[in-house]
Amino acid sequence: MQMTPIGVVRCSYETADQIPKGPGAEHVAEGVIEIDPQLEAGLVDLEGFSHLYVLWAFHRAEGFELLVTPPTDDRSHGVFATRAPRRPNPIGLTVVELRWRDGCRLGVRGVDMLDGTPVLDLKPYLSSIPAEQLRRGWLDRAEDRRRREGGSR
Amino acid sequence: MQMTPIGVVRCSYETADQIPKGPGAEHVAEGVIEIDPQLEAGLVDLEGFSHLYVLWAFHRAEGFELLVTPPTDDRSHGVFATRAPRRPNPIGLTVVELRWRDGCRLGVRGVDMLDGTPVLDLKPYLSSIPAEQLRRGWLDRAEDRRRREGGSR
Repeated sequence: MQMTPIGVVRCSYETADQIPKGPGAEHVAEGVIEIDPQLEAGLVDLEGFSHLYVLWAFHRAEGFELLVTPPTDDRSHGVFATRAPRRPNPIGLTVVELRWRDGCRLGVRGVDMLDGTPVLDLKPYLSSIPAEQLRRGWLDRAEDRRRREGGSR
Repeated sequence: MQMTPIGVVRCSYETADQIPKGPGAEHVAEGVIEIDPQLEAGLVDLEGFSHLYVLWAFHRAEGFELLVTPPTDDRSHGVFATRAPRRPNPIGLTVVELRWRDGCRLGVRGVDMLDGTPVLDLKPYLSSIPAEQLRRGWLDRAEDRRRREGGSR
């Protein structure tokens, strides 16, 4: 299955260690998504949506690991239970707030990808699962553990 | 950029017209995601999450259109402002509830893809945008219009 980038992310992150990670990390960085001008008609009416899904490629990732230890934890988990970059299909998924559109340029807030990241698709964000219905497995446990350890110091 | 399926969706939908669409469509259908047994270690700890993102391929879509008229509306919109299948990179995205895991088989609720759909990636669903912060452009307008027309009959 062959994928071709539809555009590119422009933002201030040049290396992965500049991107906030872990519990409480806030994704408020602004960026611009530049879509291929030949695809501009595909953006008509996008500006009516407050939030978008951005599907993008982890273009610097090579190969994959099935068990990974994320920056938020000291234990390993299956790669599909994490957002780690080295995955069988290295696709990233980010929800961004859409601030403005100027032709084929989209001003967005909440980027957590590197400058130059290839974009594969955009989709409107239509609905949310209510927070009280979410269970978040190892992530909740890791955050609880961190809070307890923080409190005992 | 080359993508390889990691598994397949098993469910009762055999043709696209069986899948509920449009305003108020509820996605409650149950299905099973069968992941390649060689990738089973990648699923470790996934069962702790109540909801997953499933990234999948619109495997029956050919080519793409930049302007589409979705089943929810009688006006056309840019393909990136819709979930239409014929997109430059035919990737689908669905949030499902994870009911159980048995090895490399995942019991899920909320499928809206066809039986036999290739799965590209799974990610944990970690957080939601609060409903009161969402604007949904043409979709809200189409739903309002439909409600007004329904009310005047």
